[in-house]
Amino acid sequence: MAANEFDQLRVVLVAARNPLNIGAAARAMSNFGFLHLRVVNPYEAAFREARSAVGASALLASAEEYKTVAEAVADCTLVVGTTAVRHRELQHPLRRLEYGMRLIRKKLGSNRVALLFGSEKFGLSNAALSHCHWLMRIPTCEENISMNLGQAVAVCLYELVRNPKAVQQAEKQAPAAAREAERLTALLLDALDASGYLKRHPSPVAEAKARRFVRRLKLSARDAAVWLGMLRQIVWKLRANEGKPR
Amino acid sequence: MAANEFDQLRVVLVAARNPLNIGAAARAMSNFGFLHLRVVNPYEAAFREARSAVGASALLASAEEYKTVAEAVADCTLVVGTTAVRHRELQHPLRRLEYGMRLIRKKLGSNRVALLFGSEKFGLSNAALSHCHWLMRIPTCEENISMNLGQAVAVCLYELVRNPKAVQQAEKQAPAAAREAERLTALLLDALDASGYLKRHPSPVAEAKARRFVRRLKLSARDAAVWLGMLRQIVWKLRANEGKPR
Repeated sequence: MAANEFDQLRVVLVAARNPLNIGAAARAMSNFGFLHLRVVNPYEAAFREARSAVGASALLASAEEYKTVAEAVADCTLVVGTTAVRHRELQHPLRRLEYGMRLIRKKLGSNRVALLFGSEKFGLSNAALSHCHWLMRIPTCEENISMNLGQAVAVCLYELVRNPKAVQQAEKQAPAAAREAERLTALLLDALDASGYLKRHPSPVAEAKARRFVRRLKLSARDAAVWLGMLRQIVWKLRANEGKPR
Repeated sequence: MAANEFDQLRVVLVAARNPLNIGAAARAMSNFGFLHLRVVNPYEAAFREARSAVGASALLASAEEYKTVAEAVADCTLVVGTTAVRHRELQHPLRRLEYGMRLIRKKLGSNRVALLFGSEKFGLSNAALSHCHWLMRIPTCEENISMNLGQAVAVCLYELVRNPKAVQQAEKQAPAAAREAERLTALLLDALDASGYLKRHPSPVAEAKARRFVRRLKLSARDAAVWLGMLRQIVWKLRANEGKPR
């Protein structure tokens, strides 16, 4: 999703009680690239100083304050409420986060969307809910359905930015070539011979076993080089000690 | 994912500084159905009383405490570290959360997996990282990559429980049948006639326009009934007033 589409989302916190939660919401927004926070009737006017807004103080300072939900969503064409409630007699369609965010993502290209979060204690009031087109719930467990406000904002925004096609992006270490594996096999056999291991565990196929054993390590080129160095030193020491009495 | 697979995950907080964050992590675990918390060297021994563990006090009380990362992950066959760092000279494969959790999900069926989170200030130390098979990062913005600990735990566990196939689960209202839409159209026309609207905006196709207009509302059966009641009352009042002088 392009950054200018993120620019169309308004996160609206309605009657949040704890300034730390407002700060935490701001931090999560900043983490995921959403910059427009709206606050309706916060319990504490001093929320803008919340220390929990790590890295998001500018976002918090520019938050827009409203007296009513109607004013806070007036310029939005889609208004979606979040709720933990599952079995209340809901007047709205209720969608799971995974599906709801898919719908919001489609809208964001050309529409301004408001995402509403209610107070920590009571969630969104029925009056606030009546401004919503539909509701969304995070798939929490029956045993503890209610999330912390800052965590709920983080999870919702993450669902919006997550990339279902993000696959293997690990910078894989280049694997060791057969040449290094073969050198390592030879050194290992040398060490086993010098240490007396091969005498104690004789095998007609010792070499093939060692080779398979080394291949199964699936070493990177870099790690193979380190193993080679370590084994060389060990073999050297073993051979150096060979003449000496034990 | 079955509940007993969740049972195989160990969330390991290493050197967490703020008991409120440990409590918040516990709350998020409980929200998403993960019950096994391990704590390595927390800064404050009194973390078990953290009030932020709303609905998760039992989970927090049963958290296991360890002196070292080695002990905390000893019984796990896969150890994954989380990091915000992106460009540090990493000794580990680094995977995005979406992909990393897919790998963890596959393992959880038959393996115990440890998911490590570092301290709020410094993340995981190099010593702690050396216990990990690979690392995972949450796809945060360059501008503010570092998440709050409790929020990071929430987002990671959400990724693990999210259901990519969760589609329309809204209990959709039954839509109104054509019969109701037709009744509503007739009542609307009646109201428009009685109010003088049709005289002021005459149209030879008024009925067809009204019918299309009503269809576009896509009313549910329940809402259609309410509209019918409202319009009946309005028409009744309009007609009752017809004989009276204005």
